[in-house]
Amino acid sequence: MRELTLNEVYKASHVLKSIIKPTALIKASSVNPNSNVFIKPENLQITGSFKVRGASYMISQLSDEEKARGVIASSAGNHAQGVAFSATASGIKSIICLPAGAPISKVEATRNLGAEICLVPGVYDDAFNKAMQLKDELKMTFVHPFNDPLVIAGQGTIGLEILNDMPDVEAIIVPVGGGGLLSGIAYAVKQLNPSVKVYGVQAAGAPSMVRSIDEGKLLCLDSVSTIADGISVKQPGNLTYELCSKYADGVVTVTDDEICAAILLLLEKHKLIAEGAGAISVAAAMFGHLPIEGKKTVCVVSGGNIDVTFLNRIINRGLQRGGRQCTVTVELMDSPGQMLIVTQIIAGEGGNVTSVLHERTNTEISVNACTLRMTIETRNREHIQTIVDKLKAHNIHILSVD
Amino acid sequence: MRELTLNEVYKASHVLKSIIKPTALIKASSVNPNSNVFIKPENLQITGSFKVRGASYMISQLSDEEKARGVIASSAGNHAQGVAFSATASGIKSIICLPAGAPISKVEATRNLGAEICLVPGVYDDAFNKAMQLKDELKMTFVHPFNDPLVIAGQGTIGLEILNDMPDVEAIIVPVGGGGLLSGIAYAVKQLNPSVKVYGVQAAGAPSMVRSIDEGKLLCLDSVSTIADGISVKQPGNLTYELCSKYADGVVTVTDDEICAAILLLLEKHKLIAEGAGAISVAAAMFGHLPIEGKKTVCVVSGGNIDVTFLNRIINRGLQRGGRQCTVTVELMDSPGQMLIVTQIIAGEGGNVTSVLHERTNTEISVNACTLRMTIETRNREHIQTIVDKLKAHNIHILSVD
Repeated sequence: MRELTLNEVYKASHVLKSIIKPTALIKASSVNPNSNVFIKPENLQITGSFKVRGASYMISQLSDEEKARGVIASSAGNHAQGVAFSATASGIKSIICLPAGAPISKVEATRNLGAEICLVPGVYDDAFNKAMQLKDELKMTFVHPFNDPLVIAGQGTIGLEILNDMPDVEAIIVPVGGGGLLSGIAYAVKQLNPSVKVYGVQAAGAPSMVRSIDEGKLLCLDSVSTIADGISVKQPGNLTYELCSKYADGVVTVTDDEICAAILLLLEKHKLIAEGAGAISVAAAMFGHLPIEGKKTVCVVSGGNIDVTFLNRIINRGLQRGGRQCTVTVELMDSPGQMLIVTQIIAGEGGNVTSVLHERTNTEISVNACTLRMTIETRNREHIQTIVDKLKAHNIHILSVD
Repeated sequence: MRELTLNEVYKASHVLKSIIKPTALIKASSVNPNSNVFIKPENLQITGSFKVRGASYMISQLSDEEKARGVIASSAGNHAQGVAFSATASGIKSIICLPAGAPISKVEATRNLGAEICLVPGVYDDAFNKAMQLKDELKMTFVHPFNDPLVIAGQGTIGLEILNDMPDVEAIIVPVGGGGLLSGIAYAVKQLNPSVKVYGVQAAGAPSMVRSIDEGKLLCLDSVSTIADGISVKQPGNLTYELCSKYADGVVTVTDDEICAAILLLLEKHKLIAEGAGAISVAAAMFGHLPIEGKKTVCVVSGGNIDVTFLNRIINRGLQRGGRQCTVTVELMDSPGQMLIVTQIIAGEGGNVTSVLHERTNTEISVNACTLRMTIETRNREHIQTIVDKLKAHNIHILSVD
C-alpha cells in the first residue's frame, strides 16, 4: 500500500483536474457575524459530493490488469455514486453492493452512473460482507470509502484548493464520518501551512472519531443515530484515526437540531442545498462550537444529496419555528356561524389557511362543542400572536397553538 | 443621459469587481441531454440576484452632490435589495417605496440592507408614484429597475464574464421581465462576437416583450399572471424594447408548470435554489423551446429569492408528480378492524403514512361506511400501484388516488 505524501496529494490534484468540477469559495457572512466565513461548496461537485475525488484518484492509479477486472464498493450513499461515476468515466466496470432497503432514489442514481447494482438482503454490514466475497471471487479491487491513502490523497486536494484560492485562510472546518476527508485536508494543509487550524465536526449521535481521539484508541460505537446519514459511521479507520489524531486541531460535535438550522440557513440565505453531513461544518460555525472569532474561516460543505422528502420536513419545521406557519386548534360551539367568525378573523389578518380538520368527537371538550384545527401560513411570530389575540377577543376558546 | 457603449460595460465590469461575488459557470448536463448546458448562477450573487450589478454601477456614477442626496427606488423584489445593498455599500442613503401588502420577508431583507422603507397603501403603481413624488420633493436620484443605460451596462457585465469564462459559447439564454438583463447581455455579447446566439425567455402569463417585438411596437399588457413574480412586468422600457429588438435573437415563452419543473430540477440535480424568474432560462432549455441542439449553451439563472413557503409547495407538487407522495381515499365498512387491514397493507409495502383523515359523514357513500384519506410517502409510481393493487385485492374500495 502506498503511503500518504504531499506529493501524492499534488498528483491527485493534477489527475482530478480533468475529471471534477471547480468549486469556487463562496462568501457566507450570515453564518457567523463574528467571523469571516466562506463555503467550499462540494455539494456542487459532480455526483453531488466530494467522494468522487478520492474514488477517481484511487481508480486512476490501478494497473491495467486491475482496471480490466473492475472495482467493487459497498455503500448506500455518496461513495457509491463517486465510485460508479469514476469507474464509468475511466471505462471500467463497477459493482456496488447495497442493503436491499436502501432508498430507491439512491439505487437509481448509482445505476444511472453505470454501476452494476447488487442488492443484498439485510443491513450495511451484510452488503459489505457480500462485497468482500465478490471481490475475492471476481478478483476485483475494493474501493474503501475512507481508510485508504490514495482515497485520502484525493480528498486532500480540497485542502490544496482552499490554500490556493485563499492563501490567508486561518481556519478550515470539515465534516467527519469515517474521517477520510478530514485526514486528507488536515494532512495537506498542515504540510504547507501549519498555522492554519483544521477542525472536524461530527454529529452528537455518531461521535466515533471524537470518542476515539478522547480515549486515545480506535473505538467502535454500539449504535449511531443522526439525521446526517452520510456521516453515521460506527468506527473510524485505523489510518484515518491516526491522521486525524496527528494533524487535526480538534473534533467537536453538533446536535441534529443545529444541523437542521444550518441546512435551512444555507437554503434561505445562500440558495444552496446541503445534506445533513454537508451542513454540519456550517452548524459548528453558526453555533459557536469552535474558536473562529475574527478569523477567515472556510466551512467545507461536503455534499448536497438530501432526500427531497426529508428536505420538505426540514423546511416545514423551519417555517413552524420561524413563525411562518402555525397550527391553531380551537373549540367551537356546535352551532351555525361559528366557523365563519374564525375564518373572517384569519382572513382579515392576512393569514392563509392551508389545511382544516373539523371534528365533533373530541371527548376532552364539552358535549355540544367541536374542535377546529387549522394550519395557517403566517408572516412571523407577532403575526400569529395578533391572530390568536383577535380570536380570544371574539370569545373563541383556543386549545393549542403549535 | 449617457448612451450605452461597450466601453460603458467594460467600465462597469471594472467598478463591480470589488463589489460583487464571482459566479463561476456550473456544468448542468441534466438540463438537456441533446445540448451542452452550463448555468451562470446569479442566484449565488450578493442579495440573491443580478440586480445588484446594474444598481451598483448606476450609483457609482453619480456625482458627489447626487450621492449626498441619496437614491430612491420602488420595488418589492430583487431591485429593492440591489439598490439598498449598493447604496449602503457606497455609504449613501436609500429610500425604497413598496406596496403595503409586500411580503414581510422581502420588506425585512431590504430594511436589513440599510434602506429606509416607505410602505405605500395600494399596489405597485401607487408605490412607484410615491417614489416619483418623493424624488422631486427630496431631490434624490431615482434608480430605474431596467430602463437606464447605466443599469443596463451593469447587467451587461454578465455577458462579458460568460465570454471570458467560455470563449466558445454558442448560445446564451436570459430571463426577461422589463428587459434590462437581456438588453445588457445581448448588447455586450453581440459587440464582441455576433455569432453567439442570445435568446430571451418570458412567462406565458406575462409576455410583454414577446408581444411588443411581435407587433413591432411597445405594448402595455392589461394584466399579467405568473408564479415568476420577478418578471411579472406589464410593459418593457422604450430603451430595453429597442435594444432587445435589435440585438436579441428572439424571445420565447414557457408555462408556469415548466418553470416549476425547472426549479425542482435545479434543486434536486444541481443543489441550487432558483426563484421562478431565475429558473425560466433553464425551463426554456429543458423543454426544447429554443434551437440549442448540440450547442454549448449558458442559461443565466438570474436570482434565487424564492419564498420558502412557495418552495415547499413546488416540492410537494414535484413529489406528487414523481410518485414520491400520494393521497389515497378509500371507503371502509364502519366496523372494527377495517383500518387495521389498510395500515397493515401500507406498512407491509414500505409506504410511510404522513397524514390521515377518517370521517363518517360522506353522503356519497353507503350509510354504514366511512372514508379514510391518507397521504403516503412512496418510492415511485409503481410503488403506489402496488399498494393500490394490494388494497383492491383485499376488497378495499378505493375512491380516489391523487
